[in-house]
Amino acid sequence: MRIATLTSGGDCPGLNAVIRGVVRTAAGHGATVIGYEDGWQGLVEDRRKQLYDDEDIDRILTRGGTILGTGRLPVDEFTGAIDRVKENLADAGIDALITIGGEGTLKGAQFLHEHGVPVVGVPKTIDNDVNATDYTFGFDSAVAVATDAIDRLHTTAESHNRVMIVEVMGRHVGWIALHAGMAGGAHDILIPEHPFDIEDVCTRMARRFQLGEKYGIIVVAEGAAPKEGTLEMAEREVDQFGHQKFGNVGALIAHEIQNRLDADVRSTVLGHIQRGGTPTAFDRVLATRYAVHATKAALRGDFGLVVALRGEAIRLVSFDDAVGQLKCVPDHRWESALSLLG
Amino acid sequence: MRIATLTSGGDCPGLNAVIRGVVRTAAGHGATVIGYEDGWQGLVEDRRKQLYDDEDIDRILTRGGTILGTGRLPVDEFTGAIDRVKENLADAGIDALITIGGEGTLKGAQFLHEHGVPVVGVPKTIDNDVNATDYTFGFDSAVAVATDAIDRLHTTAESHNRVMIVEVMGRHVGWIALHAGMAGGAHDILIPEHPFDIEDVCTRMARRFQLGEKYGIIVVAEGAAPKEGTLEMAEREVDQFGHQKFGNVGALIAHEIQNRLDADVRSTVLGHIQRGGTPTAFDRVLATRYAVHATKAALRGDFGLVVALRGEAIRLVSFDDAVGQLKCVPDHRWESALSLLG
Amino acid sequence: MRIATLTSGGDCPGLNAVIRGVVRTAAGHGATVIGYEDGWQGLVEDRRKQLYDDEDIDRILTRGGTILGTGRLPVDEFTGAIDRVKENLADAGIDALITIGGEGTLKGAQFLHEHGVPVVGVPKTIDNDVNATDYTFGFDSAVAVATDAIDRLHTTAESHNRVMIVEVMGRHVGWIALHAGMAGGAHDILIPEHPFDIEDVCTRMARRFQLGEKYGIIVVAEGAAPKEGTLEMAEREVDQFGHQKFGNVGALIAHEIQNRLDADVRSTVLGHIQRGGTPTAFDRVLATRYAVHATKAALRGDFGLVVALRGEAIRLVSFDDAVGQLKCVPDHRWESALSLLG
Amino acid sequence: MRIATLTSGGDCPGLNAVIRGVVRTAAGHGATVIGYEDGWQGLVEDRRKQLYDDEDIDRILTRGGTILGTGRLPVDEFTGAIDRVKENLADAGIDALITIGGEGTLKGAQFLHEHGVPVVGVPKTIDNDVNATDYTFGFDSAVAVATDAIDRLHTTAESHNRVMIVEVMGRHVGWIALHAGMAGGAHDILIPEHPFDIEDVCTRMARRFQLGEKYGIIVVAEGAAPKEGTLEMAEREVDQFGHQKFGNVGALIAHEIQNRLDADVRSTVLGHIQRGGTPTAFDRVLATRYAVHATKAALRGDFGLVVALRGEAIRLVSFDDAVGQLKCVPDHRWESALSLLG
Repeated sequence: MRIATLTSGGDCPGLNAVIRGVVRTAAGHGATVIGYEDGWQGLVEDRRKQLYDDEDIDRILTRGGTILGTGRLPVDEFTGAIDRVKENLADAGIDALITIGGEGTLKGAQFLHEHGVPVVGVPKTIDNDVNATDYTFGFDSAVAVATDAIDRLHTTAESHNRVMIVEVMGRHVGWIALHAGMAGGAHDILIPEHPFDIEDVCTRMARRFQLGEKYGIIVVAEGAAPKEGTLEMAEREVDQFGHQKFGNVGALIAHEIQNRLDADVRSTVLGHIQRGGTPTAFDRVLATRYAVHATKAALRGDFGLVVALRGEAIRLVSFDDAVGQLKCVPDHRWESALSLLG
Repeated sequence: MRIATLTSGGDCPGLNAVIRGVVRTAAGHGATVIGYEDGWQGLVEDRRKQLYDDEDIDRILTRGGTILGTGRLPVDEFTGAIDRVKENLADAGIDALITIGGEGTLKGAQFLHEHGVPVVGVPKTIDNDVNATDYTFGFDSAVAVATDAIDRLHTTAESHNRVMIVEVMGRHVGWIALHAGMAGGAHDILIPEHPFDIEDVCTRMARRFQLGEKYGIIVVAEGAAPKEGTLEMAEREVDQFGHQKFGNVGALIAHEIQNRLDADVRSTVLGHIQRGGTPTAFDRVLATRYAVHATKAALRGDFGLVVALRGEAIRLVSFDDAVGQLKCVPDHRWESALSLLG
Repeated sequence: MRIATLTSGGDCPGLNAVIRGVVRTAAGHGATVIGYEDGWQGLVEDRRKQLYDDEDIDRILTRGGTILGTGRLPVDEFTGAIDRVKENLADAGIDALITIGGEGTLKGAQFLHEHGVPVVGVPKTIDNDVNATDYTFGFDSAVAVATDAIDRLHTTAESHNRVMIVEVMGRHVGWIALHAGMAGGAHDILIPEHPFDIEDVCTRMARRFQLGEKYGIIVVAEGAAPKEGTLEMAEREVDQFGHQKFGNVGALIAHEIQNRLDADVRSTVLGHIQRGGTPTAFDRVLATRYAVHATKAALRGDFGLVVALRGEAIRLVSFDDAVGQLKCVPDHRWESALSLLG
Repeated sequence: MRIATLTSGGDCPGLNAVIRGVVRTAAGHGATVIGYEDGWQGLVEDRRKQLYDDEDIDRILTRGGTILGTGRLPVDEFTGAIDRVKENLADAGIDALITIGGEGTLKGAQFLHEHGVPVVGVPKTIDNDVNATDYTFGFDSAVAVATDAIDRLHTTAESHNRVMIVEVMGRHVGWIALHAGMAGGAHDILIPEHPFDIEDVCTRMARRFQLGEKYGIIVVAEGAAPKEGTLEMAEREVDQFGHQKFGNVGALIAHEIQNRLDADVRSTVLGHIQRGGTPTAFDRVLATRYAVHATKAALRGDFGLVVALRGEAIRLVSFDDAVGQLKCVPDHRWESALSLLG
């Protein structure tokens, strides 16, 4: 049996752990693995390489990013190339394709499945917003990096009697902000699910100062936005895939608090360090388990499915269950976090 | 309302995060919190202190260990003192007791509950062996420390063409060995649930050498034991609570492999560093969520219950569901891990 | 004997280790210590607190920032208050003042010394730009944070075939950029000491691409600037002390490379995380040694001096030797680093 | 020009950074590099491989251990093979040999030099005991690992009211114990340079308890020994090179304190984790600077020399200056540290 794999979308810690897991599990069952380069693009352009079950593949377990490269091919360029993709897979003698990627990649995989390609999906989202699974690898690593940064910022904020705004990843959902904010003992957390009123933010920080505290840490998801009508926000710069750039909302909030509270305020955008580097042990284990289950499904001929974590177990769910709806921070989690702030 | 709390049994990262969470949640609802010192002992001897919702309590979120101290009071000394305990609680005007501890502590809490004390339990086990909950805080931190150590040992083992035995915590269950072994890319993993045959261990390592590899990492839970009849193991030293001391099984295996394979073998016992230090972000979030839920249950008057993580949700379960049966590594997890080794 | 201490200027990891070292060394010789709050400001306004040789002071060894707070009082406000300062010191019965701070603080301390105040200086500069000493605490910690970030950015840059610009601290000197760039295996390093030609930067990166490499990491000190006449740089925003804000030069370079090489380029500003958090072991040892030597000098009555590291030894140097000239990256260090880039 | 290199003796973080630095510096001057495997053994047996200036070599900067492997060939086996070594070097067309290793390796290199081999030495000692140089790479990484472990042990010792003995590396000198003990805020430090009296150790710890402290951390170098006549110490197990095994002295001290103070005492042997894993930024910079200077010396034809750090500068010293005398902890450093303990 001959299995192909690829990684697509933004990189995140654990991608290599999945690749290693696929190669080793396949090798253990006498199957071989090839990898397409740079996501869908490599599949369309038939750029691929053999992945051997050797010391080199073993060592990527601890390495961030993806040895296959990744990319963001616009959807229509991909769907328009379906015939070429099927030809490429046939020419390479591929019996199963394991795709590793987020919402967009899963939709692409579903499209392939509907066109007869034998595919298994491994969900990847550093933002933790895939509905079918409790956690995805990369999220724990991103939260760990953000929490470490917040730990550091506490001491410098405190020494200078400053309010520090920390902008973390999360365009559509606030999971990283929520968990890093809770883990880092933030004094306020702002997430996309709950548009903020800047006056409330200032009131909460002012109350903290009235209680004698001299500094504050506010964790803001990059996708957090002011309540309609409460605050003019400059148009955010976006890239060609419609992704806004980092750094707007944290700076805006810093500016407003500085003016309204006459406080010393700084903002820091954690940016790309959240998605690079060695994955946490948690993410390595999860990525490896995903790989084993996805590969075994492929070896059994169970296609059109996505691996997902439910409690302590890995399950296989349909593409329909895995995509289509973002997993937002539920209200009870938000309220529970609020009770710890301030 | 007046809430008391205490930490009992072996310390683990996240205990202070629970204490902080209890104090802050209680304060948010107008309740006050006192802490008993050194576990059950402080309750029996009425040693307690007020815990204020201030900057000091806020800061312990990131600190390992427990500011209340902990201890291991023998069961009968505790049960024999039930009247004194009830008197102490009444004298201090305690409306609810939140106990933070493992199997033994939960049984003590259940005993109190059966004697009319209003108690809520927070499970604590660095070994991840409490049946009612998917994870307990401390486990992720211990796995992170062990994985970091294994990462380090790879490079030194490889440079010297050595087999390195790494003994990790886990007297009765192999969760830490399983996860750290998977995350650290170990070449063999030995756990209490599956007694090992030393000849098989040597065969697996020898096969690795035949394939051209020059070093190996074996992760061993301290409670792993040879199959009956296969290998004489010296009586393990135990302390007064019946806990064996670290270091026997790793050294034994090292000795055997050295003799049988004529390899250069070293063993390292990670020991106490696995349970100390700053908790991971994962553990801080989990500990905090436990604290919020346990405190809210106490505030509502829901007693005789234990908080537990099920999937993404915190649930309240009965003492009977929480204790009595160790959560062992299930066979499918073990087999799944085996397929990645070697 | 009664010693006073204060921390002034930007915070950096190791300040608390100095404070602890002063208190413990003083206590060992029967002296007591008080701390002025928020730098010179607290001295002018007579805000001070007793520092006891207890468990709390012992624990700050590992904590970033400064428990005394810090500040940046404009020079003339300080010199104008010299009489008040002397009165405050006399009223508090202070026999010696140990000031912990950078260039500005050392000049302030020299001014006090010239006005008869018995003062010993401990140099502090995260930028490593104090001339009298081989290293100052905080620098190693900042380099460690920056290097860790660069390690992370390698994997994400590589996965996306990107050029990543990393802006690190260093307004006037390039030490952090040089060391973090060398330690992080950067492909280009830009420092204030050597104004850059953007065309050269692009040529070097283009050569890398021609050799088949697909990504690049460029480390830029925040104070790096284009050669005169080569590139228009927008006026940098500055704060009231004339300190430019982070983020201009990195973004500028990213913009230029993106346009000139048609590459995918991102920039990240590490910002405040470089100065917060637990000091490295190196910085804790250095800060502690400074504290012991400064305190012993004060106890002996050796005033008007600054502690400094020379090779393996701590020396006492005059204020004149310690201030007045920035320690820049020497040409041979720069050339040596260049030979490793690309 | 054709340069050979090898790594010999115990591995330590930074060896790969030296190898990378040699290859890149040589490539920048048009020279090629080959590496002998497993230290002197590979040179004697002519096992070598070409080292290319590519992405793979670039990436080893952050990797612990040595990609060349290392070994400890007994001295006489090496000196007896001098003719074979010279033949091997001649056959391979080697113009210069850069050896990376400690005391033993430097003596071997000196021997080669005296027999006409063009050799440059790079000192390597995780113990920091080479006389000619202020620091060697690996030492800072070992201290960082040990300090991190001590930080962790504080919280668990404190929670259980325990005395914790931490045995760190250092057979002949106490540098790691001294620095990790200072950085970790240890309450006692025992080093080979100052044989200890167990009664004094107990007296110091008892005094701490009398002051109300409830726990203690004692850092012990593995080579620390009781004063003659004060305490019977079991014969230490040694390996074939006369190196004692870890774990004797810490356990002995734990046993004695437990008996004499009736305290709860545990001992932990950090062992091999101190020498593995990613080097600190400090060590990467130092190793890289060594590599550049050693390679440039070789390219210039400056042989019979050893690179060394003196203050901020790298110097070339003679073999005689580099070997022959261990760099012990000087008395003033020891006394200075003592004043912070307890």
